[in-house]
Amino acid sequence: MRVAIYPGTFDPITYGHIDIAERAVTLFDKIVITIAVNSSKKPLFSIDERKKMIMESVSYLSNIEVDAFEGLLMDYVKTKKAAAVIRGLRAISDFEYELQMALMNRKLAEDVVTVFLMPNVNYTYLNSTIVKEVASFGGDISGLVPPGVERRLREKFPKAIHSGIKKY
Amino acid sequence: MRVAIYPGTFDPITYGHIDIAERAVTLFDKIVITIAVNSSKKPLFSIDERKKMIMESVSYLSNIEVDAFEGLLMDYVKTKKAAAVIRGLRAISDFEYELQMALMNRKLAEDVVTVFLMPNVNYTYLNSTIVKEVASFGGDISGLVPPGVERRLREKFPKAIHSGIKKY
Amino acid sequence: MRVAIYPGTFDPITYGHIDIAERAVTLFDKIVITIAVNSSKKPLFSIDERKKMIMESVSYLSNIEVDAFEGLLMDYVKTKKAAAVIRGLRAISDFEYELQMALMNRKLAEDVVTVFLMPNVNYTYLNSTIVKEVASFGGDISGLVPPGVERRLREKFPKAIHSGIKKY
Amino acid sequence: MRVAIYPGTFDPITYGHIDIAERAVTLFDKIVITIAVNSSKKPLFSIDERKKMIMESVSYLSNIEVDAFEGLLMDYVKTKKAAAVIRGLRAISDFEYELQMALMNRKLAEDVVTVFLMPNVNYTYLNSTIVKEVASFGGDISGLVPPGVERRLREKFPKAIHSGIKKY
Amino acid sequence: MRVAIYPGTFDPITYGHIDIAERAVTLFDKIVITIAVNSSKKPLFSIDERKKMIMESVSYLSNIEVDAFEGLLMDYVKTKKAAAVIRGLRAISDFEYELQMALMNRKLAEDVVTVFLMPNVNYTYLNSTIVKEVASFGGDISGLVPPGVERRLREKFPKAIHSGIKKY
Amino acid sequence: MRVAIYPGTFDPITYGHIDIAERAVTLFDKIVITIAVNSSKKPLFSIDERKKMIMESVSYLSNIEVDAFEGLLMDYVKTKKAAAVIRGLRAISDFEYELQMALMNRKLAEDVVTVFLMPNVNYTYLNSTIVKEVASFGGDISGLVPPGVERRLREKFPKAIHSGIKKY
Repeated sequence: MRVAIYPGTFDPITYGHIDIAERAVTLFDKIVITIAVNSSKKPLFSIDERKKMIMESVSYLSNIEVDAFEGLLMDYVKTKKAAAVIRGLRAISDFEYELQMALMNRKLAEDVVTVFLMPNVNYTYLNSTIVKEVASFGGDISGLVPPGVERRLREKFPKAIHSGIKKY
Repeated sequence: MRVAIYPGTFDPITYGHIDIAERAVTLFDKIVITIAVNSSKKPLFSIDERKKMIMESVSYLSNIEVDAFEGLLMDYVKTKKAAAVIRGLRAISDFEYELQMALMNRKLAEDVVTVFLMPNVNYTYLNSTIVKEVASFGGDISGLVPPGVERRLREKFPKAIHSGIKKY
Repeated sequence: MRVAIYPGTFDPITYGHIDIAERAVTLFDKIVITIAVNSSKKPLFSIDERKKMIMESVSYLSNIEVDAFEGLLMDYVKTKKAAAVIRGLRAISDFEYELQMALMNRKLAEDVVTVFLMPNVNYTYLNSTIVKEVASFGGDISGLVPPGVERRLREKFPKAIHSGIKKY
Repeated sequence: MRVAIYPGTFDPITYGHIDIAERAVTLFDKIVITIAVNSSKKPLFSIDERKKMIMESVSYLSNIEVDAFEGLLMDYVKTKKAAAVIRGLRAISDFEYELQMALMNRKLAEDVVTVFLMPNVNYTYLNSTIVKEVASFGGDISGLVPPGVERRLREKFPKAIHSGIKKY
Repeated sequence: MRVAIYPGTFDPITYGHIDIAERAVTLFDKIVITIAVNSSKKPLFSIDERKKMIMESVSYLSNIEVDAFEGLLMDYVKTKKAAAVIRGLRAISDFEYELQMALMNRKLAEDVVTVFLMPNVNYTYLNSTIVKEVASFGGDISGLVPPGVERRLREKFPKAIHSGIKKY
Repeated sequence: MRVAIYPGTFDPITYGHIDIAERAVTLFDKIVITIAVNSSKKPLFSIDERKKMIMESVSYLSNIEVDAFEGLLMDYVKTKKAAAVIRGLRAISDFEYELQMALMNRKLAEDVVTVFLMPNVNYTYLNSTIVKEVASFGGDISGLVPPGVERRLREKFPKAIHSGIKKY
């Protein structure tokens, strides 16, 4: 059985992540979507909230496990006996960072393969940060995240919904 | 009447921004240079200071309005009934981020066109952050910002003027 | 009246070009889509064929002129008394080349502004070369070019339609 | 059984290609290394020579098939009932082109996944063109290609071996 | 005598930095490796610790001075009567920033030449930040930094050594 | 005595090349500007013409030798007992190719250092190809190349001088 790990912050999961997951499940026997916990960063959503949103968002896919970990990704990959790490690849700045991490990870665990997948062209511009920014100003985020994530984002930014523009 | 919005932080305005504004006024009937206020960031200059510096710097151009707003840019654009958003385009990292924002903004307001202009080649290396860094060490910033902006930067970093190098 | 020139090879016009033209007409009083003739290159379609395909493809837009020229773009722009040159901007390699041309053109004609517009995200991967390549192998190009262009491409590659794969 | 296609020109195969193949076989049940024949290009080696060099170079790997085809890659992928296309990813210019092809291929065959793998850092600078250039001047290409490929390259450039520098 | 300055944060020095220094000493009569102190950043190692690690790491090279300074790099360069500034160049995002700094520095001191050197391909993925991150999780950093730096990193992250993965 | 080789096609030399040469002579005891002859390419100017234009253009600089060679650059470098190869670095696509060549050359001759210098910001957009293109259409190339080069370019494109635009 070939297992692949799909790590990320998923704060929150977007349709871009889901598109990558949908494609990854056709290539491997099991995909572990795992939240990389970084205790020095302050995410908008707790680990539990993020796990729940991922599980709801990919419940229609089989052979997916949702998890979270803190530590070195390559150590985590070994505990899961995974053959591959999945990364979505969007833009140049992504690419640079991802290349660097893939090379470092190959040094740390030579036999684990980093696999890059490209999201649907419609999600080229999409990441969690821009979604949170638009949501914080009450902008329309349907089409960017699943309904359950949209609802939770609106709960996090309740005043934003009707805020509009503040002039100075 | 075609209106275009030129948004930015302008902390402070540089000759690079002014070059973009000079070119934009030849294309549109009115340009609104508007400060995008981000309450989570700490600018060096207050909104009022930044507005004053912009107004002084472009006073020789007609059909320019100076403004500030907080919220979603596309909402602001609609309140101004603008047809376009102006962005200066310098380098690759700019380009990536700008592409992402332009695509997101197109989703939020399909009929508003993001227009990218390139600054004079002499301002390729110029941005507000590098100007502040040079000014903080007492470096020569003439040729990078108008005299009024230079004076205000020197007031912000009074000790820097004769500081020179600190050895360890 | 503000005129903008939209130059290109248009061999043939694609939905990506049309998307740029649609957006440009909202910004200027007249757009001249002009075929830049390069006598050292061998296009698939003649100048006349390309002109016809452009005219058919944008006939629903008003204030568009279709033209062709050989020589220095900035000289052509002056004969048209145009204020701007329109360029579509897709990817990094585009960006590099476009920046270089925009800077050179600014040197040749300081008062003409190069305006960069970004196509719809769905056309990110689209250019005339890739369309011709897919068409030459009998691949499906609907959704990439208007029906009239598709028909002419199939006429150019008649054997391709049922060709399929050749094994060795 | 999951099959992946690894297409390329392989004119000739290098240690960079072999590194990608070695990693791909750990992820899929079968890898088809296939020469994409482009009748308008003039390769240095014939299809047969290239096939032989590939077969010799990866003979120690199991579950690999070597093939060649002309036509649309996505049509070929369907005849092989493959789930994925493997592409090596080195540098920025690669990345741009590969992104474009991956998006076009996704349009042509939605259910085939393009999988990008990164070669060993030592092969970052390596491609068939640079190998041929160095070989044509009699430079040392050991470490870049397997011994059998090196021998055939020396046969193609017999005079180069002791040529050295020509001054003008 | 031609002097070149090699500035950086060196928090801590890696084999990538050392590779650049080794190459720079063959080009100039003296290299000053100098720590650029930025009082607004919080380095992991003190200035003294960083100086010691540099000195230990390059003790086998002659004609190297180790120093530290705060202020404008170009002012420091003048105090050293240096002809050049050395910068290592790895990746695209590096390149953008380095280009910008080189152009600004050329404006500040026209006669000082910024010289870019490329590290050994094996250090392409290496920087101080990624080394600290791997070390903080107890990952293997031998081969990335000299033994003395490795020892000090382990002292900074004592709990990390046997930590492994924390699951949630 | 430290010698550096500055190789290129120089078809023809531009102010961008000259700027690099001016800076290189401050760093090394002797600079050899050398034309890399590629018998499969068709340059506009002969080797002799290019040599003459280089010599005229840099005659005010001392310690410069002008040469030409065909073969492997690293072999040529060794015959000159040079310590370094000089390369100008402008843009991203440059950077990619230059990185690749520098890494390959480092493999071929470990002790020769590739040194990258950045031209004056005003020459960012300048290369020999764009100069020839503008000259071929009779465009103004003063400010891009020295007067002697400008004169020879006009001789190569005599009809271009008053050509202007050809309409279709």
